[in-house]
Amino acid sequence: MRQDVIAREVAAMKAAGLDAICSCSPENFAYVTGFVSPTQPLMRWRHAMAIVTADGAVSLVVVDMEASTIRAKAPGTEIAVWKEFSFDAMAVLAAALEKHGLANARIGLELDYLPAADYADLAARLPRATFAPAQAMLARLRQLKTPGEIQILRKLSRIADRAITESYHAVAAGKTEMDLAAGLTRGVYEQGAEYFKLMIVATGERSVFPNVGPTERVLKTGDVCRVEIFPMIDGYHAGVCRTAAIGKAPAEAERIWANLTSCKHMLLDEIRPGASTRAIYERYLTMTEELKLPRISFIGHGIGLHLHEDPYLGPTADQPLEAGMVLGIEPLIYETGFGFGMQNKDMVLVTETGCELLSDFSNTDRLLVV
Amino acid sequence: MRQDVIAREVAAMKAAGLDAICSCSPENFAYVTGFVSPTQPLMRWRHAMAIVTADGAVSLVVVDMEASTIRAKAPGTEIAVWKEFSFDAMAVLAAALEKHGLANARIGLELDYLPAADYADLAARLPRATFAPAQAMLARLRQLKTPGEIQILRKLSRIADRAITESYHAVAAGKTEMDLAAGLTRGVYEQGAEYFKLMIVATGERSVFPNVGPTERVLKTGDVCRVEIFPMIDGYHAGVCRTAAIGKAPAEAERIWANLTSCKHMLLDEIRPGASTRAIYERYLTMTEELKLPRISFIGHGIGLHLHEDPYLGPTADQPLEAGMVLGIEPLIYETGFGFGMQNKDMVLVTETGCELLSDFSNTDRLLVV
Repeated sequence: MRQDVIAREVAAMKAAGLDAICSCSPENFAYVTGFVSPTQPLMRWRHAMAIVTADGAVSLVVVDMEASTIRAKAPGTEIAVWKEFSFDAMAVLAAALEKHGLANARIGLELDYLPAADYADLAARLPRATFAPAQAMLARLRQLKTPGEIQILRKLSRIADRAITESYHAVAAGKTEMDLAAGLTRGVYEQGAEYFKLMIVATGERSVFPNVGPTERVLKTGDVCRVEIFPMIDGYHAGVCRTAAIGKAPAEAERIWANLTSCKHMLLDEIRPGASTRAIYERYLTMTEELKLPRISFIGHGIGLHLHEDPYLGPTADQPLEAGMVLGIEPLIYETGFGFGMQNKDMVLVTETGCELLSDFSNTDRLLVV
Repeated sequence: MRQDVIAREVAAMKAAGLDAICSCSPENFAYVTGFVSPTQPLMRWRHAMAIVTADGAVSLVVVDMEASTIRAKAPGTEIAVWKEFSFDAMAVLAAALEKHGLANARIGLELDYLPAADYADLAARLPRATFAPAQAMLARLRQLKTPGEIQILRKLSRIADRAITESYHAVAAGKTEMDLAAGLTRGVYEQGAEYFKLMIVATGERSVFPNVGPTERVLKTGDVCRVEIFPMIDGYHAGVCRTAAIGKAPAEAERIWANLTSCKHMLLDEIRPGASTRAIYERYLTMTEELKLPRISFIGHGIGLHLHEDPYLGPTADQPLEAGMVLGIEPLIYETGFGFGMQNKDMVLVTETGCELLSDFSNTDRLLVV
């Protein structure tokens, strides 16, 4: 169990007048425990839940088929096991809450995750308990990364950057998007990722589409390619995207890339503790107007146990950046008017004095041509 | 849009007295449309929803940042777009339901998926509508695969089987679990998968754990390895697991494998239209007792747009198998008492007269030694 995270949760629940927080999403279960219940993100009924009480006690509620794995990862932790084919996850959770004296308590719950049917079941089993939405509180805690979390995110950023760069160098006209994908996935695992999410391989005319995977499309000279991947360790993600041209850059590609690079450097200059997320986004919008680039709906976002977390550098609630935040920043244009899209997504850590580029394996200031 | 699926949904909603079905999970959105809204499975607030009315009309509600991708995949389909940072998915869904005259209607909804907070929001916006749980009805429809679905699952089964087998042949003592993982992922993409879920690489002493990914563990002679992967195309999964020994099989491994192989052939003999799911499971339990293998909680499950679907061959509601079902069957033992686990997971199609092994690239009757 992560004692630093538990201490944060205890402080937050005291401030909010809660007696306990029950984390039921994959990310907030992992936040407390330091690991993912393996199939929870894949089968939504395979509930894994972590109860943290106001005195800092932790107990877990896990599905029978993951119990041996979780016991091995959390020796000494109290674990209640529910049976998959008895569909009794909420019954076992209710019993665990009662056991900890929480039948009449005020319990924080992730109402943006727990399905409506499960919530109705749980509420019926604990009619005297009060359930309060805890998702915003947990999301706020997760914004400020611990040293351990930063270490994982730094490693993941380098894994992604290096895997993309090396997979570009291994292809040429005549190879396919699948070849890019194959090199990329081999790369992330060989460097130590446990998993990945959302591999985007979008080349040539497909490079204008936001979130598309690889196909059998054959690369040809002059293609612009967008490749992005989110490798994972212990539930954490880093997201890096790189753009390259095959053989030679098409007309306008280098000019547009230079503009995106200017935007990246503006962001790296602006990101520091105290900077306003909204002001950075508005500065980006002004810059895109001057450079005649299309607007985008956000230019950066927090990242960690979820692909996207607050704060956004976008048209969202304004907040000051703080040291310890980790952001993905992503100058991009899907539609250039020239038949290709471009994107340069980096991972940055907000430091005490400014920011540190975590995805620093490749220098992206000039458009990569392979 | 898939007209065969829409016709099934129309018939089911008429039988259940529903005016419409609103699919909001990734699998049931893909079931209607034939494709996945790319980031929906990754960020739960990126709702993509498909409304099918009792007269067979279809409209989609999608998030702004996926709108261009979805329009390209579904030309001519009515699409309402909600804005990510306005958090107005339920407002746009409610407006779409009203537009189709459903403000007073009885609407099937996936209450095992829609988060409690979203459901409360939607219900408040449409106070005169009635929402009924539709998850069981949709799961039932999905049990009987269409010819198009069978074609995808056959392809995926071969991709998984071949990728695992070839990745085993590419390693030896001294290589690591990461080498197995790298070969495996390269293999599935090169053969045409768009994505994969749940790669299990569990070797040596780790082979006893159910759902664990690759590590830097070095393979050594006598290791037993369990490798499983679920490649994906258009949201469909096939799951195949293969076991191999490195260099030479340890004591007892071949005897245990022969027993698991007997179980596999029993399953292939028993699976046919009309066979009872519970009886097959009980037959398996009897066989494991005779062979002194540990019991397992289920021996097979439906598979398709979700990793696990009904019917289970397990201690669940009994039902007769029907032609068109696709099952994963998985004789396995995590704990052998000899320090290793073994698993052999195949994909089978229930045919008019029996069943067809879809994962037929490798012959697993003898334990693979590489």
